Amino acid sequence: MASRKPVRIALVGAGRISAHHATAIAHDLHTAELVAVVDPRIDAATALADDLGARAEADAESVLEDPGVDAIVVTTPAALHHDLIIAAAEAGKHVFAEKPITTELAEADGCVAATARAGVVLQVGFNRRFAPGFVAARRAVDDGRVGTPQLLRSLTRDPGPYGGEPERTPLWTIFLETLIHDFDTLRFLNPGSEVTEVTAHADALIRPDAREAGFLDTSVVHLRFDNGAFATAEASFSATYGYDVRGEVFGNGGMAVAGSSRTSDMEYYGPAGVSYDTSRADTDLLHGAYVAEFAAFVEAVSGAAPAIPTGEDGVKALEIARAAILSVQQSRTVRLEEVAR
Amino acid sequence: MASRKPVRIALVGAGRISAHHATAIAHDLHTAELVAVVDPRIDAATALADDLGARAEADAESVLEDPGVDAIVVTTPAALHHDLIIAAAEAGKHVFAEKPITTELAEADGCVAATARAGVVLQVGFNRRFAPGFVAARRAVDDGRVGTPQLLRSLTRDPGPYGGEPERTPLWTIFLETLIHDFDTLRFLNPGSEVTEVTAHADALIRPDAREAGFLDTSVVHLRFDNGAFATAEASFSATYGYDVRGEVFGNGGMAVAGSSRTSDMEYYGPAGVSYDTSRADTDLLHGAYVAEFAAFVEAVSGAAPAIPTGEDGVKALEIARAAILSVQQSRTVRLEEVAR
Amino acid sequence: MASRKPVRIALVGAGRISAHHATAIAHDLHTAELVAVVDPRIDAATALADDLGARAEADAESVLEDPGVDAIVVTTPAALHHDLIIAAAEAGKHVFAEKPITTELAEADGCVAATARAGVVLQVGFNRRFAPGFVAARRAVDDGRVGTPQLLRSLTRDPGPYGGEPERTPLWTIFLETLIHDFDTLRFLNPGSEVTEVTAHADALIRPDAREAGFLDTSVVHLRFDNGAFATAEASFSATYGYDVRGEVFGNGGMAVAGSSRTSDMEYYGPAGVSYDTSRADTDLLHGAYVAEFAAFVEAVSGAAPAIPTGEDGVKALEIARAAILSVQQSRTVRLEEVAR
Amino acid sequence: MASRKPVRIALVGAGRISAHHATAIAHDLHTAELVAVVDPRIDAATALADDLGARAEADAESVLEDPGVDAIVVTTPAALHHDLIIAAAEAGKHVFAEKPITTELAEADGCVAATARAGVVLQVGFNRRFAPGFVAARRAVDDGRVGTPQLLRSLTRDPGPYGGEPERTPLWTIFLETLIHDFDTLRFLNPGSEVTEVTAHADALIRPDAREAGFLDTSVVHLRFDNGAFATAEASFSATYGYDVRGEVFGNGGMAVAGSSRTSDMEYYGPAGVSYDTSRADTDLLHGAYVAEFAAFVEAVSGAAPAIPTGEDGVKALEIARAAILSVQQSRTVRLEEVAR
Repeated sequence: MASRKPVRIALVGAGRISAHHATAIAHDLHTAELVAVVDPRIDAATALADDLGARAEADAESVLEDPGVDAIVVTTPAALHHDLIIAAAEAGKHVFAEKPITTELAEADGCVAATARAGVVLQVGFNRRFAPGFVAARRAVDDGRVGTPQLLRSLTRDPGPYGGEPERTPLWTIFLETLIHDFDTLRFLNPGSEVTEVTAHADALIRPDAREAGFLDTSVVHLRFDNGAFATAEASFSATYGYDVRGEVFGNGGMAVAGSSRTSDMEYYGPAGVSYDTSRADTDLLHGAYVAEFAAFVEAVSGAAPAIPTGEDGVKALEIARAAILSVQQSRTVRLEEVAR
Repeated sequence: MASRKPVRIALVGAGRISAHHATAIAHDLHTAELVAVVDPRIDAATALADDLGARAEADAESVLEDPGVDAIVVTTPAALHHDLIIAAAEAGKHVFAEKPITTELAEADGCVAATARAGVVLQVGFNRRFAPGFVAARRAVDDGRVGTPQLLRSLTRDPGPYGGEPERTPLWTIFLETLIHDFDTLRFLNPGSEVTEVTAHADALIRPDAREAGFLDTSVVHLRFDNGAFATAEASFSATYGYDVRGEVFGNGGMAVAGSSRTSDMEYYGPAGVSYDTSRADTDLLHGAYVAEFAAFVEAVSGAAPAIPTGEDGVKALEIARAAILSVQQSRTVRLEEVAR
Repeated sequence: MASRKPVRIALVGAGRISAHHATAIAHDLHTAELVAVVDPRIDAATALADDLGARAEADAESVLEDPGVDAIVVTTPAALHHDLIIAAAEAGKHVFAEKPITTELAEADGCVAATARAGVVLQVGFNRRFAPGFVAARRAVDDGRVGTPQLLRSLTRDPGPYGGEPERTPLWTIFLETLIHDFDTLRFLNPGSEVTEVTAHADALIRPDAREAGFLDTSVVHLRFDNGAFATAEASFSATYGYDVRGEVFGNGGMAVAGSSRTSDMEYYGPAGVSYDTSRADTDLLHGAYVAEFAAFVEAVSGAAPAIPTGEDGVKALEIARAAILSVQQSRTVRLEEVAR
Repeated sequence: MASRKPVRIALVGAGRISAHHATAIAHDLHTAELVAVVDPRIDAATALADDLGARAEADAESVLEDPGVDAIVVTTPAALHHDLIIAAAEAGKHVFAEKPITTELAEADGCVAATARAGVVLQVGFNRRFAPGFVAARRAVDDGRVGTPQLLRSLTRDPGPYGGEPERTPLWTIFLETLIHDFDTLRFLNPGSEVTEVTAHADALIRPDAREAGFLDTSVVHLRFDNGAFATAEASFSATYGYDVRGEVFGNGGMAVAGSSRTSDMEYYGPAGVSYDTSRADTDLLHGAYVAEFAAFVEAVSGAAPAIPTGEDGVKALEIARAAILSVQQSRTVRLEEVAR
């Protein structure tokens, strides 16, 4: 038996994460082929595509019309996700969308409906679901060792020092782009249960000068689940020690803890004690998880497996993020059903 | 130079923790002498005292009147703390009070005032301040390695399975007896800063049958500090893996993480992977911290060092606990100045 | 600029490790193409090749004559390495040989000479040089943090229970196939220095019934280096907890410790304490290292980097293994120059 | 029931370790009383004794004749152990002797015989038997989880930089004073089995200038046990990262690993990665083990428990040390029965 025909993928977007994803698809996935890189900044698209043996396009239409493209991977700014996903669905292309699925709930619902209608796969880029430690933590829940989850925690800290530009950062980025990972992780570690209430706290502690403009760089969000579990999601835009992604699920059977910034199993013992290195970049720490999520997407496109996390998972995480934003705006606990569409 | 005259201590209370403390004072502290154990249940007092070469008393008056007693250690139920501390102060005895200092704020203020007036030491039993990992974490804050704290966490999980009796447990025990440790720990790890706001969430997840009676066994409390830091305190009455006490302080310089349930540095590698043992009891895990806090008390009584944590620290933690209770009662964020006296 | 033309590889051998390697080359290396799998057991070759889109061949001649093959990867039994490497060199093919390079020193010398003469790459499969922890340990040596190495350790324990067949295992396998890894690792962690003396101890502790037939399953080897360092290499054919590969280098500046059997960063806390999973197979634990060594080989073939570990490294490790065998045979310390060619 | 009468102890010796031990006995052992400190350097004895409420004596006779002394703790240079132990036995005093029991085997035998004849306790100061990690490792052997030991390791590295004076260090100190701990540990972790063969390697790597004078500061010793197990003992006089004491026992059931230089459970995460502190001194790292061995001694003196490690354990470890010395002198493997008395 010969091996399966590779899934032909066009990647839309040519920013930092796009370069990583394009390379991962082209180099690390034997089940996929990168056929095109799309970006209106055609020079960026060309530079990336050339290196990877793909073609460059300035706009998405050309790949959506191309019968030689099976699926698109959406890595554009989030504001552009909706239109791309709808267009892809209408063109019969499968879609892998980086998180968040969209920034508006009604749009997210629309994406789910459109892809369902078109019968194409819609998978959302919650990569932690593919990181070995988080997978093992979920397994400990599934096999009963954790019991019923009662207390959960998920956190994301970006590697510092923070070098972003607050004035160019969309409002609510910490919820829509960063904590959205944690909201999904908490749902992942408490399967079968949904969030009912959100109480969010946030401030500009790293860049207090940007606080008045509405910039938020540090946040703690309290969630309540319908099985009674309490959860805490935490985020910071600047951790001096690198990229920090951790999860914890505690139940009446036990606890699973996942996530480490450690780069290898080497420990150095010297005059200052013992030390080990930490990872400076998500694309280093989670490279394997990124590859695994693309491999899962290809499996889903091939019909060999369901697409998980689904568009619905993307919607659920966005609902929590939207509730968190409302909670900050109104300084109160928000019930999930209050979130407007 | 001969060694200093030992501080003569009477321990009031003969419950579980009393036995541990009496033994620690009698056996592990060369700078102190246990002269009496006081408990109205005279048989319990006698059993404990006899073993330790001390005398037993049915009520505290006799030791407060005894010029051969320098100090008392209060390990009675919290409701009795106030009257004992006031009486001790009036008798000129130094006081080490187990946490919480009292359960009512006005009473706590009274204790601080009375001991100040009498010129006697008042130290509160926040033992984590003496656990090596927490001490080292605080040192990392003090020496600037953590920078300005931005995100903190402290948790307490009692060893399970839970075998308590909800109907005999005073209301709000999880805040007044358990999380009070975490409230102090968070202040300890964010020195020079005070809590301004409290948002508490709690439920009976371990014993849902007792929920209606007001019993709470699981809680997450969100705190805001006046230096902007966010903090989370978490508690559960039942961890299958033993006694779990941890702290984390993250700042713009780095992070210090403290606390482990591990009993020794032995790791066993076998067919089921690698494993190590965890501690079933606070008196095992924190025995050294208990001894160290008594040693510090003795130093304070001898005038060699200030009593830390002070009565004021006891008041501050109680204020936070009271705010948490109000927050649960009213399902809202409570500012610390709202807490009535 | 288009990406480089992939290196076209034929893999010779179709045993357990061959399947892993063939798949790694075909799927995980974008810089290489697996064009053929060669094995006299043509069914095994075909099964493997078909899955990977390669062709199957019964003997190596056909691929050595094929101008469409740039390099061969040798994963046959060690006894066949020499003839294959010589033939490949004569055919102008680059060679990646699994360890040991050969089992006889004179043959190993011949391989090095032939490939040098032919100007082709000869790289030996010491995969630990590509495992992140070992790489980081070596870096700690190179950057001076370890100082001059004084005490080293390297060990290999195969996952148990041992299911091999002693009667079908070549004599001295523990030295030639297992400890050869550790001999190379010790040289890797003590760069610029060479072994001068070997004292080996070995026995059949797992299968004492096979001792009389000369089977050895457990060994400790003491090495002396010309910079004065002492080293210990240890091996066992059966570790109940999985595949165990570790290294330690201690010097006058500090110590680096590498290697862990751990499968992920998840820790489970339950009634029996804390536990984490260990790896059952070298191909799991070291998969990334295998891919990295093939990637390095492809770089070397492309002329972009030197081939490391070299054929000479293969010879050096074999010299130590041969000295260890002589040491066991004669129950004495053996100087490396005593090893006959 | 009143508590037991304390065991009255005179400590002989007033060097570095003596001060630690005297203080531990006086302060940390409620079951013992330090009555005297003996040292011909009377000023040192007085300084130590005064602080601890004991009396100072210039020679041992006075305490051996004193009916108010139950036991002596011998912390003099090893060359003086024999005469002191014999005299103590004849005076009917129990003896705790720091390791090594003596430096000559015939003398060690004499000590065992004399104390047996006198019916007094003789315990040897192998403190690792009381360190929690090593205790837990032994428990894993005793309860069958390790199975039959096959490979063992024990190491000792003194905190550096080395500040000793080679010219004032007795020959063979690394075996008689340092590795003697490891020899005992290996016997402790392989209970019921005895060493049959010793192959020792040693050199002056830290102070090569002192090599010619016979000074040895680094050593690796290979041991064979009569149950087939192989063991490695390693020592260095200078570890930049502090005091390093570890043990490992691997068997057909699993492996137990013990020992860590870590000072607390705090981990610091900063720009240079993660780090934790290590211990600079044996008296810090093993303080609890020292106290526990004295407590065990007091129990043995009180007749409540056997004295373990016994004088015989002291003899066994010394036999191994003597075999190691012979092995170095003659550059060959030495069978234990070759060791002359």
